[in-house]
Amino acid sequence: MALALKEKGIATRIIGMDADKGHQKKALELGLVDEILDLPAAIEGSSLIIVAIPVNSSDILVPKLLDMVDKQVLMDVGSTKENIINKLQAHPKRGRFVTTHPMWGTEYSGPEAAVKGAFVDKATVICNKEESDSDAVELVENLYRSLGMHILYMDAAAHDLHAAYVSHISHITSFALANTVLEKEREEDAIFELASGGFESTVRLAKSNPQMWVPIFMQNRENILDVLNEHISQLRKFKSCLEKENYEYLKELIENANKIKRIIK
Amino acid sequence: MALALKEKGIATRIIGMDADKGHQKKALELGLVDEILDLPAAIEGSSLIIVAIPVNSSDILVPKLLDMVDKQVLMDVGSTKENIINKLQAHPKRGRFVTTHPMWGTEYSGPEAAVKGAFVDKATVICNKEESDSDAVELVENLYRSLGMHILYMDAAAHDLHAAYVSHISHITSFALANTVLEKEREEDAIFELASGGFESTVRLAKSNPQMWVPIFMQNRENILDVLNEHISQLRKFKSCLEKENYEYLKELIENANKIKRIIK
Repeated sequence: MALALKEKGIATRIIGMDADKGHQKKALELGLVDEILDLPAAIEGSSLIIVAIPVNSSDILVPKLLDMVDKQVLMDVGSTKENIINKLQAHPKRGRFVTTHPMWGTEYSGPEAAVKGAFVDKATVICNKEESDSDAVELVENLYRSLGMHILYMDAAAHDLHAAYVSHISHITSFALANTVLEKEREEDAIFELASGGFESTVRLAKSNPQMWVPIFMQNRENILDVLNEHISQLRKFKSCLEKENYEYLKELIENANKIKRIIK
Repeated sequence: MALALKEKGIATRIIGMDADKGHQKKALELGLVDEILDLPAAIEGSSLIIVAIPVNSSDILVPKLLDMVDKQVLMDVGSTKENIINKLQAHPKRGRFVTTHPMWGTEYSGPEAAVKGAFVDKATVICNKEESDSDAVELVENLYRSLGMHILYMDAAAHDLHAAYVSHISHITSFALANTVLEKEREEDAIFELASGGFESTVRLAKSNPQMWVPIFMQNRENILDVLNEHISQLRKFKSCLEKENYEYLKELIENANKIKRIIK
C-alpha cells in the first residue's frame, strides 16, 4: 500500500513503524518508507495512519493510537471486523477510525512481500461506515479509489461471515492439504516429484504466516467452524460416492462444483 | 502437445481424430492439426499415435489401436496407469505401447484449452518402461525432452499413489470447496463479492470436466479414498482446535503446513 500511495502521489512522505527492527531496516532499504519514527512522533507527523498488523495486535494497538490522534484519520486493513468494531464502540474518538479490508494479499508477509500494482481491480470493504466521521470516510474512500479498488459497504458481522467463506476456509483447506501430503511424504520420499500446477495452486496458501492467521481464526471462530463443518460434510459426500461406487452422484457433485465458473472466470 | 510438436519441428504433419465433430472442426481452425482422418487411415499414416482422452475411454480404445498398429508407436497421456497397464499385460503388441503422464494441465479441456509453451520445465512419468520396446521408449523420451520436460520412471502402482496425493486430491478439495460456498450462496447472494486471489486459486480446479475426472476417481479409487480419509482427519484437527480453542496446537498445525515451502517455491 505504501508503494502504491507513493506512486499515485497520494502520499508525499511515508513514515514507517514496525515492532521488528529487521523489518524497519528492510522497509527503508526497499524504499517502502521514507523514515522510521517512534509512535508518538509518527502520529504527530501524519495525516493518515494505516494499521496493518495481526488482528489480535490491532485490538490492543488501535485503541491506544486512537487515544493519541487529534484530527488524523486512523484506518486498519485487518481480515476480521466484528471484534475491533466492538472494542471501539464506546471510544470517544471512534469517529476518527475507519475499519477496512482490502481483498488482496499473498501467502507472503513482511516488507519483502510488497508487490507493485497490488490492489488494482480488487474489492475493498469499509465496515460500519456510519460510525466514522464523514471526512475520515472520504479520505479512505479516495485512497482506495486511487489504488484502483472498488468499495463495498457492509456491517462487520456480514463481512466476517463472507470472509469465512471466501478467504478463511481456503486457508484452512490449504493448510490441511499440505499436512496431508507432508504426512505421507514420511513414507514416500518421491511424493513431490509429480507435484505440478494444480497442486501448487491448491496449497500455496499453506505458506501463510501463523502470526497472522491464528488470530483471524480465533476472532472469526464461529463462522469458520460453520463453514468447516459444511466443507467436511461436502468432502464426505465425495468419500461416500467413492466407497459406494456411486459414480452417477459423483458426476452430479462435480457438475454442481462446475457452477463456480459463473463466479471465477 | 500438437502445438509444441509442430513448433519444435518434431512432427511435420499432425493428423487429428476426435469423437466430437465440433472439436474436430475447432482443432483444424486453430491449426492444432493439419487434417482429420478416420482411425484406420490416421493410424496407417502415422509414426506416433498419442491417445489423450478420458481414462475409461482409453481402456477401450488403446487395445483396439494396438491391434491395428504395426511398426508405429502408441502412447497415452492419462492420469491413471495401473488399470491400462493391467489391461494390456497380455497383448501381443504390448511392446509398441508406452504409457506416460505429463504433469501439466489446466482446469479447461477441448481444443480451445491448448496453450503454447505448456509442458516446459515440468515432469513427465513413463511407467513400466521395461514392458515397452526400446525403440518405442526412445521415441517417446525424445519427444518429452524436446518439449522441455524431465522424465521420471515409475511403476504404475507408485504413479497412481503419488498422483492421488499431488493431483487427484487437489481436485476433490476444490470441487468440495466450490460446493461448500455455492451452497451458502443460496442464502447469501453477496457472498462472492469478496472473493479474491486466494479463493480463486483454491477453487480453480473445480471448473474441471467430470467426463475426465469421474473415470480418474473410479480407477484410482482406493488410493484416493486413503488420501481423502487422511485429509478429512487433518481438517478435523483444525476443527477440534477451534472447538476447544486450543490455539497453541492450531499454531503448530500451521507451522507444520508451512513446511510445504520446502517443496513449492
